[in-house]
Amino acid sequence: MAECKKIKAALLGLGTVGGGVYKLVQRQKEEMVKKSGANLEITRILVHNMNKQREGVDASLLTDNWKEIVEDPEISIVIEVMGGIEPAKTMILEALCAGKNVVTANKDLVAVHGRELLDAAQENQVDFLFEAAVAGGIPIIRPLKQCLAANEIDEVIGIVNGTTNYILTKMFEDGMDFSEALAKATELGYAEADPTADVEGLDAGRKVAILASIVFHSRVVFDDVYTEGITKISAKDVAYAKEFGSVIKLLGVAHNREDGIEVAVYPMMLPKNHPLASVRDSFNAVFVHGDALDDAMFYGRGAGELPTASAVMGDVIDIIRDIQFSCTGRISCTCYKNTPVKSSDDVKNKFFVRMQVTNKPGVLARIASMFGEHKVSISKVIQKVITDGVAELVIVTEAVKEYHMQDALMHLREMDTTQEISSVIREY
Amino acid sequence: MAECKKIKAALLGLGTVGGGVYKLVQRQKEEMVKKSGANLEITRILVHNMNKQREGVDASLLTDNWKEIVEDPEISIVIEVMGGIEPAKTMILEALCAGKNVVTANKDLVAVHGRELLDAAQENQVDFLFEAAVAGGIPIIRPLKQCLAANEIDEVIGIVNGTTNYILTKMFEDGMDFSEALAKATELGYAEADPTADVEGLDAGRKVAILASIVFHSRVVFDDVYTEGITKISAKDVAYAKEFGSVIKLLGVAHNREDGIEVAVYPMMLPKNHPLASVRDSFNAVFVHGDALDDAMFYGRGAGELPTASAVMGDVIDIIRDIQFSCTGRISCTCYKNTPVKSSDDVKNKFFVRMQVTNKPGVLARIASMFGEHKVSISKVIQKVITDGVAELVIVTEAVKEYHMQDALMHLREMDTTQEISSVIREY
Repeated sequence: MAECKKIKAALLGLGTVGGGVYKLVQRQKEEMVKKSGANLEITRILVHNMNKQREGVDASLLTDNWKEIVEDPEISIVIEVMGGIEPAKTMILEALCAGKNVVTANKDLVAVHGRELLDAAQENQVDFLFEAAVAGGIPIIRPLKQCLAANEIDEVIGIVNGTTNYILTKMFEDGMDFSEALAKATELGYAEADPTADVEGLDAGRKVAILASIVFHSRVVFDDVYTEGITKISAKDVAYAKEFGSVIKLLGVAHNREDGIEVAVYPMMLPKNHPLASVRDSFNAVFVHGDALDDAMFYGRGAGELPTASAVMGDVIDIIRDIQFSCTGRISCTCYKNTPVKSSDDVKNKFFVRMQVTNKPGVLARIASMFGEHKVSISKVIQKVITDGVAELVIVTEAVKEYHMQDALMHLREMDTTQEISSVIREY
Repeated sequence: MAECKKIKAALLGLGTVGGGVYKLVQRQKEEMVKKSGANLEITRILVHNMNKQREGVDASLLTDNWKEIVEDPEISIVIEVMGGIEPAKTMILEALCAGKNVVTANKDLVAVHGRELLDAAQENQVDFLFEAAVAGGIPIIRPLKQCLAANEIDEVIGIVNGTTNYILTKMFEDGMDFSEALAKATELGYAEADPTADVEGLDAGRKVAILASIVFHSRVVFDDVYTEGITKISAKDVAYAKEFGSVIKLLGVAHNREDGIEVAVYPMMLPKNHPLASVRDSFNAVFVHGDALDDAMFYGRGAGELPTASAVMGDVIDIIRDIQFSCTGRISCTCYKNTPVKSSDDVKNKFFVRMQVTNKPGVLARIASMFGEHKVSISKVIQKVITDGVAELVIVTEAVKEYHMQDALMHLREMDTTQEISSVIREY
């Protein structure tokens, strides 16, 4: 194996994922030769702070000078694991234009500037791969782009944020309320100090934009995704979900309808027998429906040092093969359509509405007729007397357009018998 | 698109899967050009009976003369969907040697002669792909070979036979007994007239041999796989599984241990919170554990006309790309190791043993001490009096080597207080 080809790579960033990639490269050194036919060597690591002590890393590889990487003709693979839009975007574009293949785990970047990066890769006949940008370690981009290429996929639904899935699991299984479950997630390192991007559905929104672009062959960007988080979900809602034989999950949902693409992130009540319903703790899963395939689901770790590094290295090994067969750029952008993304107002959903109303005769009838006037059909009503004067009313609707529902909710809020609209949750 | 490259393929067989492939090629005609950059045309279909009426198929494509295909230099892809060992094996070898790329859905063949076929593909620098041979429509071979290439995988467990999973689901959820559930499966077309290959675990055995070869990078053939079916599972066993918070599933199980590969198919009691436990009806799923990845699972349709055709066509589209980039043969055999496969006697498992014994004092003590003498530790005992003279005794063991267990069972059978050993089921 001594005479085997050497392929040189640079690592941009040495945080959690970067450290994982570095570890895997060391750990798999000998195996990789047998798997890919070449010897991978990380010859440069771009870091911000040259003075920081980094255990187990050869200090002579560190540099804070990007030019040393992009201008080194021997480096054929650049692995970007810094995150954030800049300087990652500029560096990736410069690397691609310099004829280097690029692997990234950067969902923020791909969800917004994916097209530009893929175009640059195509022009330069190099690979730009980002398996780790969606659902961490779960193989999903390659299966969707290649294995399912003969399908017309009309639905992709993902539990693509581990933090919120952990929180919702704790609320469902251990009866915690939101703040208690969030505290537990923070303690275990699942939630960041500022959990906004997770709990408000922004992180999931980026991933579902990338997924939708791939399965519908039409560019969907983060701005297209309507997002709603889980901060308002209460223990009471969870109890009703149980009563209905459902669970509550934060779902990234995308559909390809005749009149355009629908894409959003929100908490939904999901029947227990749906494959996504049994995805627990911080695990992620992506469910797709294709015309030939029927239903399929991909399940695993959506984050973490080594699971994410596993996805990054899967891409790197593929590039090593492509380099040896002189076929880099073999699979690039697959968005050959230009399907419009629908306004979220026009999307149809079923709704679960929980409210506190004045407990007197005729209230339900008035609410029901107001719903009817606003084109909202009711499929189920549950009324529970709380005190003499107050009843808790739960209404589940048929599928209605979001703007009809918002309209009805506005009028409901104005009714003198409405004391509080406690929650509005969509049903799958 | 008129001047776009034309790639010609031949179909061997026009049964269920062949019909599905033909349909998908028609249905995806225009999309495929955008997806793969070339125009795929099926120019020949090999059939046994030229006189059979075949609706929707251009009769001028049919031939019963293999020479017309293998000697046609314009055909660059051969799609084998006849099944069985011969003549499929000879034809595939001839096609590979003639420089044609081959896609097959033939698990019987790959599980036994995989190495020879992959070697022939490598020698001729062509693709030999078989995504459809394991778990039908579920993308599994490509994810394992490519996406998870940086992992050391030590475990793969699959529900890879839809017929038996349907039967076990009906037994578990609807309280049917085995024969009733099998009759229902036959009625729905899930089970064949002779269901032996399914219910005895042979079909699953072929698939797990292929999976083990891929994940452990060492050739495992069907003969290496110990198989046991589900015909002896009774409603009573299912009831105990429920009592234990488990389900019973027919699992293909493979582990890479320090002393070799363990590979088998048998029904197992599986805790309800394992991801495979919620795989219902005729769905399949493959669960893997890797050192970087942690747990992952791939779920979907394991059989059927269009799901299987979806997997076949995923391979075909990949070959079309490889042809255009002149990189066929890019990924071939990944079995670069030579790990021994352990004898099934040396595998350790936990066992659930249900028996009818004479109901008199001291019986349990005698059985327990006999188990102990044969190195079988007991973790749980349940005793239920059936009649005055008979008790049902359930013993769950700790993990013990199969040969110790078989030894203990032999002695148990010989004890004068043993009236019947009703079932012996492994626990995951």
